[in-house]
Amino acid sequence: MTGKLAGKRVLVTQANDYMGPQSVQTFRGAGAEVIADVSDLTEPEAAARVLAEAGTVDILLANLAAPNHHGVAVADVDDEIWASAFDVMVHPLHRLVRATAPQMIARGAGKIIVYGSATPLRGIARLAAYTAARGAQAGYVRSVGTELARNNIQMNLIAQNWVESDVYYPESLQENPKFQANLKREVPLGRLARAEEDCALALFLAGNDSDFFVGQVIPFAGGWVS
Amino acid sequence: MTGKLAGKRVLVTQANDYMGPQSVQTFRGAGAEVIADVSDLTEPEAAARVLAEAGTVDILLANLAAPNHHGVAVADVDDEIWASAFDVMVHPLHRLVRATAPQMIARGAGKIIVYGSATPLRGIARLAAYTAARGAQAGYVRSVGTELARNNIQMNLIAQNWVESDVYYPESLQENPKFQANLKREVPLGRLARAEEDCALALFLAGNDSDFFVGQVIPFAGGWVS
Amino acid sequence: MTGKLAGKRVLVTQANDYMGPQSVQTFRGAGAEVIADVSDLTEPEAAARVLAEAGTVDILLANLAAPNHHGVAVADVDDEIWASAFDVMVHPLHRLVRATAPQMIARGAGKIIVYGSATPLRGIARLAAYTAARGAQAGYVRSVGTELARNNIQMNLIAQNWVESDVYYPESLQENPKFQANLKREVPLGRLARAEEDCALALFLAGNDSDFFVGQVIPFAGGWVS
Amino acid sequence: MTGKLAGKRVLVTQANDYMGPQSVQTFRGAGAEVIADVSDLTEPEAAARVLAEAGTVDILLANLAAPNHHGVAVADVDDEIWASAFDVMVHPLHRLVRATAPQMIARGAGKIIVYGSATPLRGIARLAAYTAARGAQAGYVRSVGTELARNNIQMNLIAQNWVESDVYYPESLQENPKFQANLKREVPLGRLARAEEDCALALFLAGNDSDFFVGQVIPFAGGWVS
Repeated sequence: MTGKLAGKRVLVTQANDYMGPQSVQTFRGAGAEVIADVSDLTEPEAAARVLAEAGTVDILLANLAAPNHHGVAVADVDDEIWASAFDVMVHPLHRLVRATAPQMIARGAGKIIVYGSATPLRGIARLAAYTAARGAQAGYVRSVGTELARNNIQMNLIAQNWVESDVYYPESLQENPKFQANLKREVPLGRLARAEEDCALALFLAGNDSDFFVGQVIPFAGGWVS
Repeated sequence: MTGKLAGKRVLVTQANDYMGPQSVQTFRGAGAEVIADVSDLTEPEAAARVLAEAGTVDILLANLAAPNHHGVAVADVDDEIWASAFDVMVHPLHRLVRATAPQMIARGAGKIIVYGSATPLRGIARLAAYTAARGAQAGYVRSVGTELARNNIQMNLIAQNWVESDVYYPESLQENPKFQANLKREVPLGRLARAEEDCALALFLAGNDSDFFVGQVIPFAGGWVS
Repeated sequence: MTGKLAGKRVLVTQANDYMGPQSVQTFRGAGAEVIADVSDLTEPEAAARVLAEAGTVDILLANLAAPNHHGVAVADVDDEIWASAFDVMVHPLHRLVRATAPQMIARGAGKIIVYGSATPLRGIARLAAYTAARGAQAGYVRSVGTELARNNIQMNLIAQNWVESDVYYPESLQENPKFQANLKREVPLGRLARAEEDCALALFLAGNDSDFFVGQVIPFAGGWVS
Repeated sequence: MTGKLAGKRVLVTQANDYMGPQSVQTFRGAGAEVIADVSDLTEPEAAARVLAEAGTVDILLANLAAPNHHGVAVADVDDEIWASAFDVMVHPLHRLVRATAPQMIARGAGKIIVYGSATPLRGIARLAAYTAARGAQAGYVRSVGTELARNNIQMNLIAQNWVESDVYYPESLQENPKFQANLKREVPLGRLARAEEDCALALFLAGNDSDFFVGQVIPFAGGWVS
């Protein structure tokens, strides 16, 4: 197999959701051997089991997504909505990293890329639980990215917003003229990103050309934040 | 009673810990009626009960602290350390805000100030759980601060580091010459902040002079971040 | 004379423009002796002369403003518009600091506060020269604030937007319903700041309660940036 | 000619300095037609003349560098040092963009990449003029990047530090053990970036995979800022 990532083994989580399908396609297209995992990672033992079965993982693509419950006022965010944000997006991130880091440290090489969110960088009303959970991911990457850099492991987070996905921008929303007007007003580039563009950034971060990026929260939002 | 906050009722949480004692003193000194709560807020019903008993709260000082487990490598952060960071610093924050916001919305006025951390802004190695939890607080404040601004409620977070406290800078650490050398090198101002200085910022944020601050994560770290 | 700043000598530049008049009033109200300078600081020798005449300056309020030429496309920003932004807002800032720092260093105390802008933190189209000049101020404060902290001098910048001023928000603009709709949409707090609120922040930064702020670019924008 | 940038015309300024030589090599290696300009751009008419001679420019690499005068105390930064920072790094940037934007707007496509600095994001003492000038570049890119996004032109800035270059890290400095100790302490990755790595980021930003980046100031500093 040839390609930029030939010989590399990549684990993509929630491979059927959010950025999962495009990630699998993009990374296979780059010559990587992709493990497309579809486990329910809210189960506490799942992450360790997935890694144990995966064997060597050169690149971890932490793709963790849930409904964002946009529009619920903060006083109405009940314990279930609140907990689910952390159960899906935050706790599995740590369990995945905890299970992956030792083998990367042993080899003195590795890449961890988190599909995160730009919302902790620019607040959106009525998005409390989601933004808190995405903020936890960002804080985690800042600390752990700094820590693992010493072992030549590069961990970074894509702080995205306005990226096409069934979870957050279903077709019905995209067809709404008010949404389109809002998009033009809020996003300087004036359009959503395609999933391929998002995964092209992940691919850049997965290669050794980008080793000097560590612990970063990288805005990817068409100019909505910069 | 006279003073800048005369007639205001202030709830200080974990009043015996971290920034609690100085907050009680500073806010009483400014003429406020201070409810110095010492409940264990990790208990899921505690926040609602505290607010039910407190009656009107004009100003909420969310003071939530726990050991930071600095020095534990990411692969050694077990489920207990991990969960405790969120149980102490993150989930109670939402429960407190959820219980307080309705009365503030009804009055069309209120102040919420979170004693948070600068660590999600500049990563420190071997501080994974703590930084993630503090990052969750920061994200939460960005979103909820934006949301509640519409109701003339100002919610902000003090992103502090290098502030005197028994929890994070015990005397034994401060007397260590290596710590002092590091302090000089890392903090442009060259010293720790006194707790009074931190609470003076909280006091500024609690008054109406600062109403134009909303949803902000305000670095307070002697120049360590800016 | 009594008041928080009793015994302090404060230099306010461009005292008739922008935040000047309110600054003079606020700082006099706090008991300071205010030197309300109205020199044209674009003249290269002016800053040194003003400081030579002023004598001891405990607090420098660098209030430097010019028309922002909002609406001019980047290709139409001619050399005159471009140079004037730097001549008014950037070069005088350095000349003022260069002339003031030695006496502050000699005393081991001082405060420098710059009325700057939030525009370098969140880009606005057709505002090229102004944003570049304000970005230069922000960079300058980050470096020089770090440097002077060693001498117990605290230099910070108020990164403001949406603050009432004749220069940027004349009454005719404020009465425009499209402006009001835009204000509601863009600024979570839903209104302009009053000049008094802005100067209250300057006053907080001028007192010793805020010594732990150094080299900071502090957003003051009603939630427009955070 | 084949390659990612086949058929693209790229203008590299100060092609013999700083990131110039490596940029020429990297972009030629990607199949682009590279115009390696070595004009003195401090001359006011130079930028317009260079663009007039260059013809179509699909990608502008604004490589503008000067000695940074690190170590000069702020009170000793004289008018010559001050002016030269802006004359070399700031004013030519606008003149280049002003001369390039119209043809890009006419085609509805273009890329502008600025080799800037991370210093305006994290202050370094005794680097006043340089940091101010780099801050002006950052502010400019935020505004103009937002403006030109509407025309499908993507303008971004690489906010670099700790990148190998003769200008800022001569061999004699790199061989100094104190420098090496400082490097390990300050930069989580523990080494300087190679010029190729920096230009690989520029190449990523020059391709259409990165169109969703606009007006961004992208830290590239091995974790020194994030």
